Amino acid sequence: MEKEQLIAEMKKLVGEDNVLHSDEALYAYSYDATPGHTYMPDVVVSPGNVQEVSAILKFANEHKVPVYPRGSGTNLSAGTAPLKGGIVLLMLRFNKILDLDLENLIAEVEVGVVVQDINDYVAPHGLIYPPDPGTVKTASLGGTICENSGGLRGLKYGITKNYVQGLEVVLANGDIIHTGGKNVKDVSGYDMTKLFTGSEGTLGVITKAYLKLVPKPEASASMVAVFNTLEDAGNAVSDIIAAKIIPATMEILDNASIRTVEDFMHVGLPVDAAAILLLEVDGHPVIVADEKEKVLEVLKRNNASEVTLAKSPEHKEQLWTARRMALPCLAKLRPTTFVEDATVPRSKLTDFLKIVTKAAKDYNVTIGTFGHAGDGNMHPTIVCDIRDEEEMKRVHQAMDVIFRGAVELGGTLSGEHGIGLGKLPWMELQHGKAGMEAMKAIKRALDPNLILNPGKLIGEC
Amino acid sequence: MEKEQLIAEMKKLVGEDNVLHSDEALYAYSYDATPGHTYMPDVVVSPGNVQEVSAILKFANEHKVPVYPRGSGTNLSAGTAPLKGGIVLLMLRFNKILDLDLENLIAEVEVGVVVQDINDYVAPHGLIYPPDPGTVKTASLGGTICENSGGLRGLKYGITKNYVQGLEVVLANGDIIHTGGKNVKDVSGYDMTKLFTGSEGTLGVITKAYLKLVPKPEASASMVAVFNTLEDAGNAVSDIIAAKIIPATMEILDNASIRTVEDFMHVGLPVDAAAILLLEVDGHPVIVADEKEKVLEVLKRNNASEVTLAKSPEHKEQLWTARRMALPCLAKLRPTTFVEDATVPRSKLTDFLKIVTKAAKDYNVTIGTFGHAGDGNMHPTIVCDIRDEEEMKRVHQAMDVIFRGAVELGGTLSGEHGIGLGKLPWMELQHGKAGMEAMKAIKRALDPNLILNPGKLIGEC
Repeated sequence: MEKEQLIAEMKKLVGEDNVLHSDEALYAYSYDATPGHTYMPDVVVSPGNVQEVSAILKFANEHKVPVYPRGSGTNLSAGTAPLKGGIVLLMLRFNKILDLDLENLIAEVEVGVVVQDINDYVAPHGLIYPPDPGTVKTASLGGTICENSGGLRGLKYGITKNYVQGLEVVLANGDIIHTGGKNVKDVSGYDMTKLFTGSEGTLGVITKAYLKLVPKPEASASMVAVFNTLEDAGNAVSDIIAAKIIPATMEILDNASIRTVEDFMHVGLPVDAAAILLLEVDGHPVIVADEKEKVLEVLKRNNASEVTLAKSPEHKEQLWTARRMALPCLAKLRPTTFVEDATVPRSKLTDFLKIVTKAAKDYNVTIGTFGHAGDGNMHPTIVCDIRDEEEMKRVHQAMDVIFRGAVELGGTLSGEHGIGLGKLPWMELQHGKAGMEAMKAIKRALDPNLILNPGKLIGEC
Repeated sequence: MEKEQLIAEMKKLVGEDNVLHSDEALYAYSYDATPGHTYMPDVVVSPGNVQEVSAILKFANEHKVPVYPRGSGTNLSAGTAPLKGGIVLLMLRFNKILDLDLENLIAEVEVGVVVQDINDYVAPHGLIYPPDPGTVKTASLGGTICENSGGLRGLKYGITKNYVQGLEVVLANGDIIHTGGKNVKDVSGYDMTKLFTGSEGTLGVITKAYLKLVPKPEASASMVAVFNTLEDAGNAVSDIIAAKIIPATMEILDNASIRTVEDFMHVGLPVDAAAILLLEVDGHPVIVADEKEKVLEVLKRNNASEVTLAKSPEHKEQLWTARRMALPCLAKLRPTTFVEDATVPRSKLTDFLKIVTKAAKDYNVTIGTFGHAGDGNMHPTIVCDIRDEEEMKRVHQAMDVIFRGAVELGGTLSGEHGIGLGKLPWMELQHGKAGMEAMKAIKRALDPNLILNPGKLIGEC
């Protein structure tokens, strides 16, 4: 379809004020937080209600125009990059928290709401919405549902999927459907809620969600432990779980990350340590005290050379600087940053970290690794310069070794950032030909004209 | 296909010993635990490994022979009844617990294993597999995965879906795929694990699963409270949740259930009470003591006329007799028992119980209701005589009122028993035409020849 005609049709559907098509606007929406994926859309459209979304999809479906749903654009796998042009469907006008049902502990929230705003809204009632991706202060709810985002509390509290109980979804043909709801048990039909959650916008456009809330834990205790070998750090993680303790967070930073943060921040990090672990236990004050002692014992048994307990919330913030600043500091090293999220069963953590370290050495690339040790969800972060072709070749070789290594250890390509375009080349390795074909069959069933985020997650259909 | 030829082909695939086709055998597998659904299959086949399942499905797909997967046959929605004849695929030879991974707290279990046996196997390690349907000592794992079974601990611990992390599945075309795995975070591709879980055998045949285990709670406290009005009982349930207490179980019995149990058992139940609540809190001993006090306070504030605390495990068993015996006692009243499981948001519990009571009166049918109050997951149990056509007409009228009432309250047709055949007539009411069409599209995508449990869950495609 002609670009001018498309723009005119979109203006008819949502009003002139909600359609962008200047070169500057199109460029601003041509990429997300993933390096190397810039594609110009034809038009950026901001619908204001579900009926407008329905009308846009109906039109796009009829005319086979690609539609790329987008929230805040914080995606790390090029999930919102408009690969084949067409429409960027900007969902940020869906910005209302519609209801807070305290009897059922459910919030009804539109997809354009920023995740942190949900937490701020429910906090006065002693409740939390646990999913907390690193982008919690920027990411829209819709983006986190489409990617099934995780975060630091995933180990104990689970991920976005565990808190999405129902959805309003517009299908490719414009049909509006409602899945799930406020029922904590519901086995009526296929679990469409879980199918759309994490589908990266390839099966339908989500407009609102019913979110499960949980009581805020009463108390917490934080600590940082230093290790001289990766084995000791990995064993400590496994031993804590084997001791039946599920910390709220259990984060790891490798030597490259520690050094980089220390170089920029000068906060006195142990630059010779192989790894540091940052842990928090939370819950009832008595349990917190009990688990804290048990964790300390496990850390010492696994040769932690130093353990520091947070004495106050401010002290905790200070201790956690290393974790919070790992990505920003690594990103300062070089022009381009690839944050990966290959994930392995937690017992394989040490094996995986060794693969990453070896890949960095073998291909002479800089990789700092940090992440959610309790989940086996690592963030090998490769810093490089995307303009240097020779270096990029080595970067991709290192990535290949890392992804293959994760899959061989029984892991997965992505723990929380999604597949998008970035990890497509390795999908068949993980899922097999038959597994990919089954997913493609579902895509074709719900989006026969392949208009929804085409080219992503499962690739070409 | 000719029955004799089908039998001969099946014998070639799995050996003569694993094929049943006598009239007695076919009759034995012609029904499950749901009244009114008896259909003769052509042959009963027991594969011994995943390759045999693949060969059977490949053959059935090519010749368009219906395949009805079956475990222990405890299904309450006719999910395993062989509606269109063909093959009953008996999965009970898949009877091994393949691995217990204590580092990752994951058990790898074949689908023919009885659920209680999983718990017995992991108990010495201080672990539990929380899903506990009423049939826990009989039901096979596969059946509970296909139905996404719940149980008494659903409120706090969730249901089967929350514990299934990965699957081995044979698709209709015979392809063997693996979904999910041991990773606690995994967003690589569509969530096929959750799609197959609860799909009632209509999308693929599950052969094994990776199950998440959790530490056994250290302590627990049980109590029974008597209420003179349904409102008070319903309000007590809502207030407990609103007080941020999530009991491990919170069960309710209505007056009809109480009277029936007392008539048969003579255990001194309060036959004039409108309802009794049975509660258990569990966890760390300090939390248990704390929550127990808070629950007692809420119960009293909501006019509980009597509260009895269990003084010992034996005393608890005695107190819980009423709950355990509700279904067997109700079933003794009349020849036929329909156990429904319509579920509503928990704040609508009282409204729903009133609808059920009124329906029983309006249509002059006997309905005892008990169930999982914390989940809003009720079991209105209609006892009748299926041979009495006039009575059955009234039974179906009452059911219609109950299902419509649940959906109007924002509820669902099924909290844990599945749709099967029993609740098909109301599916469009809950999901709408577009919602049904989306599910049917998925069915046709994964099973284009409609051989897998045809006619169930979404009806004719």
